[in-house]
Amino acid sequence: MKKAKKKINTAILIIGNEILSGRTQDLNVSFISNWLNINCGISVSEVRIIPDIQKKIISNVLNLSKKFKYVFTTGGIGPTHDDITALSIARAFKVKYDYNAEAYAILEKYYGKKEFNLARKKMAKMPAGSKLIYNPSSAAPGFKIKNILCLPGVPSILKSMMPNLKNYLIKGPLTYSRTISLTTYESHIANILDKLQGKYSSNIEIGSYPFFRLGKVGVSVVLRSINNSAIKKCEKELLNIIKKIKIKIYKA
Amino acid sequence: MKKAKKKINTAILIIGNEILSGRTQDLNVSFISNWLNINCGISVSEVRIIPDIQKKIISNVLNLSKKFKYVFTTGGIGPTHDDITALSIARAFKVKYDYNAEAYAILEKYYGKKEFNLARKKMAKMPAGSKLIYNPSSAAPGFKIKNILCLPGVPSILKSMMPNLKNYLIKGPLTYSRTISLTTYESHIANILDKLQGKYSSNIEIGSYPFFRLGKVGVSVVLRSINNSAIKKCEKELLNIIKKIKIKIYKA
Repeated sequence: MKKAKKKINTAILIIGNEILSGRTQDLNVSFISNWLNINCGISVSEVRIIPDIQKKIISNVLNLSKKFKYVFTTGGIGPTHDDITALSIARAFKVKYDYNAEAYAILEKYYGKKEFNLARKKMAKMPAGSKLIYNPSSAAPGFKIKNILCLPGVPSILKSMMPNLKNYLIKGPLTYSRTISLTTYESHIANILDKLQGKYSSNIEIGSYPFFRLGKVGVSVVLRSINNSAIKKCEKELLNIIKKIKIKIYKA
Repeated sequence: MKKAKKKINTAILIIGNEILSGRTQDLNVSFISNWLNINCGISVSEVRIIPDIQKKIISNVLNLSKKFKYVFTTGGIGPTHDDITALSIARAFKVKYDYNAEAYAILEKYYGKKEFNLARKKMAKMPAGSKLIYNPSSAAPGFKIKNILCLPGVPSILKSMMPNLKNYLIKGPLTYSRTISLTTYESHIANILDKLQGKYSSNIEIGSYPFFRLGKVGVSVVLRSINNSAIKKCEKELLNIIKKIKIKIYKA
């Protein structure tokens, strides 16, 4: 993987009526986001969830493609009538939508010539010029065209394909994070966190998240930065203040 | 609630670094979407997840506000430095960001005068002209300004506030859905579903979702429509075809 010094920002475009309707709980955003950070030092800066409507896919792909280094799509690359991601992206970039010879050969081998029906052949249709993202689970490959990387919606299949993305990505700096869970409530430490964020505004992002576990309330303070020594310094400072005002660390 | 005959489309704007980074799994999209459909006949047509950055909140609020009947935001209305939703929306609509007298009174009563510190007072600050969305869990209200309805990010608190939204919403037609789970695979029934979708294109949305449960594979076919009798007719037709080609209904 090539390396970049600056933070690389990316977007995820979830394509699927089933996520919007609430029928299916999305699990791909958190997986992709964590995977990209740990393996490639890439940060997700925006997510959109849109329906299986060609016009919407086209406008969102074009818009996000301009704004971000990479755009990962999930969903809509299967064999049924509601799988319209590949066709829509071909339309978006005004290229042909046709069989990709390599994908065709992979699928024909996987299913066997006799069982390779039209629906299965559809999964080999892609925007012209696409490069494949190999699928070790169920053969049907994803694809990359320009800065758009198309993955399936089924989480287990998507997960198995992620390592095959690496060659298409430039590596950015890893974002480190440190979570400090405290037995307090947000309004008690808001002032402290505000001052600390002011002091570290140039290189640390401080988040404050209340939690309720087993009848206890607490706050998780999350420090995130590409500078790990800054995080360590900031954490030490926070722990000193917390100790002085007698707030305890939360033990699960 | 007033009633509308036409489908009412809405958007959800999730504001929070913790969702984008993958640290926290969003649970609000599916809850809000299901709740709005069942209780108000309102459909979610787009979701965006964005970071706690004022510029991004402003541009997304303005953009979605124009495109949708309602926009529900979640997150960023707590007492800490990273809670900037209310301020950002005031800036978006170019109105004052100041104490809402009713919210101030509610919070002062809840905490008591002595414990009502600056961080807690911050939760009473809203765009001028906001109407409150009452919070039976933890007092701090959400708010409505123009067509934007602002809710907290913590799922349990958000859930408790949903009933208090009803007065602000016009009721649309309920979307009915029927799921038929089959012991087959997508490429085997793709052709059937394609033809059926063609026949019912005017009023039914047919979705096809493969599943893998306890080592078995199957497909859930989902029929969605505001016309329940059309769904029943389409379901009957599908079951007849399925029976003829000897595909069995999946039993969990």
